[in-house]
Amino acid sequence: MPEMKKPFSITLQVRDYECDIQGIVNNAVYQNYLEHARHEFIKTIGLDFAALHARGIDPVVYRVELDYKKALRPGDTFDVSVAMEQEGRLKIHFLQKITRGTDDIMHGRVTAVFTDGRRPIAPPPEVADAMLKWEGRE
Amino acid sequence: MPEMKKPFSITLQVRDYECDIQGIVNNAVYQNYLEHARHEFIKTIGLDFAALHARGIDPVVYRVELDYKKALRPGDTFDVSVAMEQEGRLKIHFLQKITRGTDDIMHGRVTAVFTDGRRPIAPPPEVADAMLKWEGRE
Amino acid sequence: MPEMKKPFSITLQVRDYECDIQGIVNNAVYQNYLEHARHEFIKTIGLDFAALHARGIDPVVYRVELDYKKALRPGDTFDVSVAMEQEGRLKIHFLQKITRGTDDIMHGRVTAVFTDGRRPIAPPPEVADAMLKWEGRE
Amino acid sequence: MPEMKKPFSITLQVRDYECDIQGIVNNAVYQNYLEHARHEFIKTIGLDFAALHARGIDPVVYRVELDYKKALRPGDTFDVSVAMEQEGRLKIHFLQKITRGTDDIMHGRVTAVFTDGRRPIAPPPEVADAMLKWEGRE
Repeated sequence: MPEMKKPFSITLQVRDYECDIQGIVNNAVYQNYLEHARHEFIKTIGLDFAALHARGIDPVVYRVELDYKKALRPGDTFDVSVAMEQEGRLKIHFLQKITRGTDDIMHGRVTAVFTDGRRPIAPPPEVADAMLKWEGRE
Repeated sequence: MPEMKKPFSITLQVRDYECDIQGIVNNAVYQNYLEHARHEFIKTIGLDFAALHARGIDPVVYRVELDYKKALRPGDTFDVSVAMEQEGRLKIHFLQKITRGTDDIMHGRVTAVFTDGRRPIAPPPEVADAMLKWEGRE
Repeated sequence: MPEMKKPFSITLQVRDYECDIQGIVNNAVYQNYLEHARHEFIKTIGLDFAALHARGIDPVVYRVELDYKKALRPGDTFDVSVAMEQEGRLKIHFLQKITRGTDDIMHGRVTAVFTDGRRPIAPPPEVADAMLKWEGRE
Repeated sequence: MPEMKKPFSITLQVRDYECDIQGIVNNAVYQNYLEHARHEFIKTIGLDFAALHARGIDPVVYRVELDYKKALRPGDTFDVSVAMEQEGRLKIHFLQKITRGTDDIMHGRVTAVFTDGRRPIAPPPEVADAMLKWEGRE
């Protein structure tokens, strides 16, 4: 899979119930934001996980790394970006950033592998195809 | 279905991430507590929703009423009770209370109906059977 | 406080992590949606709860009634509306609807009272003032 | 701060509302479990974050690494452990494991630093004192 050149991004707003006693967004909620952005990305590029699932192929998150830079506060508007890169034959990294204007809020790297139910497999060609199509490189 | 005489109860503890900016449990989280207690109750009395689902029968929550009396705070230990009663031919009410020692925290009434996928149906006999068995009245 | 004539509304989208094993939005999550819409409404009409809090006055939710009509599903876009009405001297009802296009998803009534820390008090004049201003009736 | 020899551990049970469309615990919820175990650990060893906060000292999570091994399912009972170690002058790592019987579910490393509101500072002596006391090494 080639390197992805054009990151995908969505804009969200903090909801009060996502904040905890410290008055800032709870640490775990950032993972909700990252997941939502990945799923929107996957839908946007037209990757059909249901069709892969019907063939017995599923992605699994197996490592998450999160670097907390600054905290989000009630009412903040922020962007969540997604880029994708492959490492070796099996691993796909989702490189994600949360930013609030010029402030870096979080850098995240979410590593997934595809499995056929028994063992890890190389990402199916649909993944690279969808990404290239989205980047207008197909 | 006869009136249920012996309420079911579980004990839980507030987790910090369930609290919001006011330093108390967020209003929506109480519904999580109530749902968890209902599901534990259903498992405990041996009611098999998966078996009903396989026959096309599913319960649906269609009304929730919550009376907030006092707030739960970080670290609080509390009890969540469940009783069940039928109204008319179709409705089942789950009568629930959250208490902290002698403090009333919440009274809730969650009304469910069973459907066969097209229309509401009377609760299947398994429901009353499981309840009576649990109450030792079978 | 006069009757509110112009409901407030926000548009949201279901996020996958808000859905449960049944593949639909979990019952408790609707309360998050309702709360978020109420808080946006309160900010939009310019009601300053922090300023009231500084004078020892706080609103407290004391009853919630939710009528579930249809379920929201992954990716659904929906609207959450808020209207406000007073009952008697003390109670304020937030009348809320969740709709998806022409589908009624939920009707909710959230009842709040203001307290001065010891007992319920009539809503401070700022509440009616902000509402009238928002409705262009001031 | 010396190396911690005796890990702390709590036992929890999966609640249905923590599971997502795949029928397994949602990825973000594991961070709730880890946080709850850390906070219980901190209370158990008698470390008083409110007292530190009153002196202007607060811990901040600045990196989280999570290795997902196996998924938790509805009703599963599992253990969450916490150990602590210092790296260099500033960093404290919470080394955490989630296990279900003999199954490894997740390994996590949560890195925190203390700040005085302006810059990172070495962990206050109360931290090592509380840990040693808990380990019976004081």
